[in-house]
Amino acid sequence: MNKPAPQPDAFARVVHRFATAGKLSAAQMMLNWDAQTHMPSGGAWARSEQMAALTEVSADLIGSTAAGDELAEAEAMANALEPDERADLTEMRRQWVHAAAVPKDIQAAKSRIAQQLQAIWTRAKPENDFASFAGPFAELLSITREIAAAKAQVLGATAYGAMIDEYDPGVGEAMIDPIFADLAAFLPPLIAEVRARQAGWAAPMPFPAVSVERQAALSHRLAVAVGHDPDNFRIDAAPHPFSVPHSPGDVRFTTRYDEANPPFSIHATLHEAGHAMYEANLPRGFAFRPGGEARGMTVHESQSLSLEMLAGRSQEFLGFLSPLMAETFGGDPAVWALSNVVNTWRRLDNDYIRVEADEISYPLHVILRYRLEQALMSGDLAVADIPGAWNELFTKLLGRTPPSLAQGCLQDIHWAAGLIGYFPNYAMGSMLAAQLFERATADEPDILPGLGRGDFTPYFNWVRPRVHQRASLTSFATLVTDATGGPLSTDAFKRHVRRRYLEEAQP
Amino acid sequence: MNKPAPQPDAFARVVHRFATAGKLSAAQMMLNWDAQTHMPSGGAWARSEQMAALTEVSADLIGSTAAGDELAEAEAMANALEPDERADLTEMRRQWVHAAAVPKDIQAAKSRIAQQLQAIWTRAKPENDFASFAGPFAELLSITREIAAAKAQVLGATAYGAMIDEYDPGVGEAMIDPIFADLAAFLPPLIAEVRARQAGWAAPMPFPAVSVERQAALSHRLAVAVGHDPDNFRIDAAPHPFSVPHSPGDVRFTTRYDEANPPFSIHATLHEAGHAMYEANLPRGFAFRPGGEARGMTVHESQSLSLEMLAGRSQEFLGFLSPLMAETFGGDPAVWALSNVVNTWRRLDNDYIRVEADEISYPLHVILRYRLEQALMSGDLAVADIPGAWNELFTKLLGRTPPSLAQGCLQDIHWAAGLIGYFPNYAMGSMLAAQLFERATADEPDILPGLGRGDFTPYFNWVRPRVHQRASLTSFATLVTDATGGPLSTDAFKRHVRRRYLEEAQP
Repeated sequence: MNKPAPQPDAFARVVHRFATAGKLSAAQMMLNWDAQTHMPSGGAWARSEQMAALTEVSADLIGSTAAGDELAEAEAMANALEPDERADLTEMRRQWVHAAAVPKDIQAAKSRIAQQLQAIWTRAKPENDFASFAGPFAELLSITREIAAAKAQVLGATAYGAMIDEYDPGVGEAMIDPIFADLAAFLPPLIAEVRARQAGWAAPMPFPAVSVERQAALSHRLAVAVGHDPDNFRIDAAPHPFSVPHSPGDVRFTTRYDEANPPFSIHATLHEAGHAMYEANLPRGFAFRPGGEARGMTVHESQSLSLEMLAGRSQEFLGFLSPLMAETFGGDPAVWALSNVVNTWRRLDNDYIRVEADEISYPLHVILRYRLEQALMSGDLAVADIPGAWNELFTKLLGRTPPSLAQGCLQDIHWAAGLIGYFPNYAMGSMLAAQLFERATADEPDILPGLGRGDFTPYFNWVRPRVHQRASLTSFATLVTDATGGPLSTDAFKRHVRRRYLEEAQP
Repeated sequence: MNKPAPQPDAFARVVHRFATAGKLSAAQMMLNWDAQTHMPSGGAWARSEQMAALTEVSADLIGSTAAGDELAEAEAMANALEPDERADLTEMRRQWVHAAAVPKDIQAAKSRIAQQLQAIWTRAKPENDFASFAGPFAELLSITREIAAAKAQVLGATAYGAMIDEYDPGVGEAMIDPIFADLAAFLPPLIAEVRARQAGWAAPMPFPAVSVERQAALSHRLAVAVGHDPDNFRIDAAPHPFSVPHSPGDVRFTTRYDEANPPFSIHATLHEAGHAMYEANLPRGFAFRPGGEARGMTVHESQSLSLEMLAGRSQEFLGFLSPLMAETFGGDPAVWALSNVVNTWRRLDNDYIRVEADEISYPLHVILRYRLEQALMSGDLAVADIPGAWNELFTKLLGRTPPSLAQGCLQDIHWAAGLIGYFPNYAMGSMLAAQLFERATADEPDILPGLGRGDFTPYFNWVRPRVHQRASLTSFATLVTDATGGPLSTDAFKRHVRRRYLEEAQP
C-alpha cells in the first residue's frame, strides 16, 4: 500500500476546507447562470434541489463546530503566517461567524419562505396586490430579525448592521448614515437646478428600434474594448442582467436586449463588464478562498458604476461610442450623433423605478429603501404600513407620488428574496465610484483620452492593483484610503454630478 | 426560539445523505455539459477545481465511516420498510462499498493521472505515439489494479469484475463470457455471408453535404418525434455526443454535426434521445436517490441502441425518415428515397473505428477490448504489448489489420480516462436492446406501424413501466426476466441481424 500522506498543518487544513466551500459556491453561481440563460423551464425543480444540496453542504463545511475548532487551531499559529494569509484567516472566521450564528433549521426556514415569497411577489406586483405579499413577508421579516439578532450578538453590531455585514463587511450604519443624510439634503435642490437648465434644451431625436443581433454585436465590441479576452468571455441574454462571480478565467455576464430601447443593453453591458473585470482580476493565488473574494458589494458596485456611469457616460467615451452605434446600429446617422446621444442620456428622468433612474436621482431611490429597512428591522414600521411609508418618503425625496404599487414598494424582488441590508451598497457604490474615478483620472492623465479611443487600459492599469488585486486581503477602509487618500465621502460624487450636469459642455 | 425539529429516523437520515450526494452528482453532470458545450476555454482550470471539490465532498458523504454507521442503523430497521425502500437501501450500501473500499489518496492519485493521461492521449493518438502513452498508462493501470483488488475483496468478485460492477452491477464476467464467446463464433461467418450478398447490390447514390442548420432542424424534429417535450429539452453540439443524467425535467443531450456526413447526427441524436428518455422516465419519487438511478450501463445502452439501431434503422422508421430528410435537407429527392437510404445504411463497413462500426461488426470491436482488459487486469498482458495484441485479435475477429495505432489501440479515450470495465456494456447493451425490442414488438403490434408514422408512443408505453420506471429498484437479472420472459442471451440479437441483413426486403 501507499505511504500515508504527510499531515497538513492547521492553516492548510482550514484553507482547504474554506476553498472547497468556495468551489461549491462557484458551482452554484454557474448553475444559477445556466438557470437564467439556458435551462429548459421543466428543470426548475431539479435545479432548486441541487442548489439546496450545495447550500447545505457548504454551510456544514464552513459553519460546523469542526470548522470552528480548525480555525482556532490555525489562529493559534497566526504569527507564523504571512500578512495575506492572516487576512485570509480573518475572512474565514467572518464567514464562520455568519454561518455558525444561525441554527440550520432557521436558515432553512428562511430559504423556504423566500422561495415561496418570490413566486407570490411575481404574481402580486403586476396586480398591485400588497395584501397577499404582506403576510408571508411579515413571516420572512420575523425570521430575518431572529437571524439578525443572533448575528448581531456575535458581531457586536446592530441587527440591521449584522445584515449589511453579510454583503458588505466594513460598511456599517455608522458610515452609511451621514453619507445618506448628506445626499438627502444635497440632491433634491441639485435635481431642481438641473431640471431647470435642461428645460431649455431642444427635444432630442428619438432613437429607432434596433434588432437584438445588432445590439448583441455592439455589446460584444464593448466587452472587448473594456478589455475582456475575446476567447474567454461570453455574453448571454437574461431578464435581469448579472455577472458570474468566482469563476477565474471564465468570464460570463448577461445583458438584456430591448429592441425599442437600445441604450439599455449598452448600459447593462458596461455595468456587468465592470463587475466581471473585478472578478477576472482577483488574485489567482487566492482563488476560491475567502480572502481572494471581492471586498464586498459597495466595492463591487463601484466597479460596475465606474464603467457604466463615470467612464461610460463621459463626453470622451460617448465620442467613441456614438460613431460605433452609427456603424453597428445603422439607420439615420444623425440620431447617433454625439450631441443627440448626450442630449438623450444626460436628461434627468421622471421615473419611479430604481433600475431605470438617472445618475443623480438614483441614490435617493436607495436612501428610501434604506430608511424603510431600518424601520422594519427596529420594529418602528409595520409591514402593513409599507405602502404608505414608501409613498410618503418617495414624495419627500423625489417630489412626486408613485401611481401604483408596482411602481412603488412592490417594484424590486430583493425583499421577497430575503435580501435585507443589501440595498445600501447601490448608493455607497456610486460614492466610491466617483471617488476612485476622480483620483484615477488625476493620477493618470491618459485615462480620459483613452476612453475617447475606446481603450480602457490606462483606467484598468490604475484600478487593478489598487482595488481588484487587493481582493479581501485588506479592509474596506484601508482599501479606500490607500487608493484615494481619504475615507469614503460624498465630495467626489458631488463634484462629479455638478461638473457633468451643470458645468460641462451641453448638447 | 423555534421548537427543535423532530429527529428523523435512521432510514430518512441515510436517504437524505445519499440524495444530497446524488444532487451534487447531478450538479457535476450539468457542469460537465456546460464544459463541453458553452464554457470559454479559459475556464478549464476553475472548472476542474469545482469538479474536484464536488467529487471530494460526495466521496465524504457516501464513503465515510459515519455513512457506514448510518447505513447499518437503517439496515437494522429494514423490516419496517417498503420493498422499494429496501431496494434503495441496497443500492446505498453498494455505493458505500465502492466509495469506502478505496483510500481517498489512492482515488485522488488515479484522478490526477487520468487527467494528465487524457492530455497525453490527445497528442499521442494523431501521432501514433504509443511510447509516450505507455508509461503513464502503466502507472494508471497499476493504481486501477490496486483499487480493483480492494473492491474485489469486499464485493467477493474478481478484480476485473469489481471494476465492471462500478458501471454495471449485476452484469459480471459470468454473464459476459459465454455471450461474448457465442458472438465471437457467430458473427464472423455471418459477416462473410452478408458481405457476399451485399456485393451484388447497386452502388448507392452518395449523400450530399448538408448544412449544420438543416441537420439541427432535423435533430430537433426527431427528438420531438421520439417524445421529448418541445418546451423542456435542448440539443447542443459537442465533439462527443452524450446525454445529461440525473436531471429530471431538464432533458439535455448533444450531437455532432458533420456537414459531409449527415447520417452521423441522425444516429447520434436518436442514440442520445434514447438515453435521455430513460433518464426522463425514471420515477420522480426516487429522484437523486441510488435506487432511483438508471439500472446500469448495459440497460442504459439498450435504451439508446433500441432507438438508434432497432427502431431507428427499421424499414418502418426509415419509411418515415426518408421523406423527412428530403424535406429538411433539400437537394435531389432521389438521394433521400427509401431504397437509397436503406442501401447506404444497411451496408457493412470496413471500418477500424468502433464508434463508426455497423450494427453487426460492432460487438466484435467491444469483445476485442474486453479480452485485452481481462488480460491487462490479470497481468497476462503487459502494457508494452498492447499494440501487437490488439492487431492480432482485430485480425482474428474482423479479418483485417489496423493500418495505424490511431485506428487501432489508441482510438478510444476510455483507457486514458481510467475507464476499465466500461466497454462490455456497449455489446451487452446490443443484446438487451434486441431482446427487449423483440418482446415489445411481439406484445404490442402497433409499435412498428407507429414508427412508420414517426410515433414512438406505442414503443415507450411498453418500455416505460418495464424498464425505465423500475430504475435501480430491482436487479438487472429480474428486470430482464420480468420484461422479456428469460435471462439475457444472444438469441434475439442473432434473430434480429439475420432477419434484417439476410431475410428482409433489400434495396
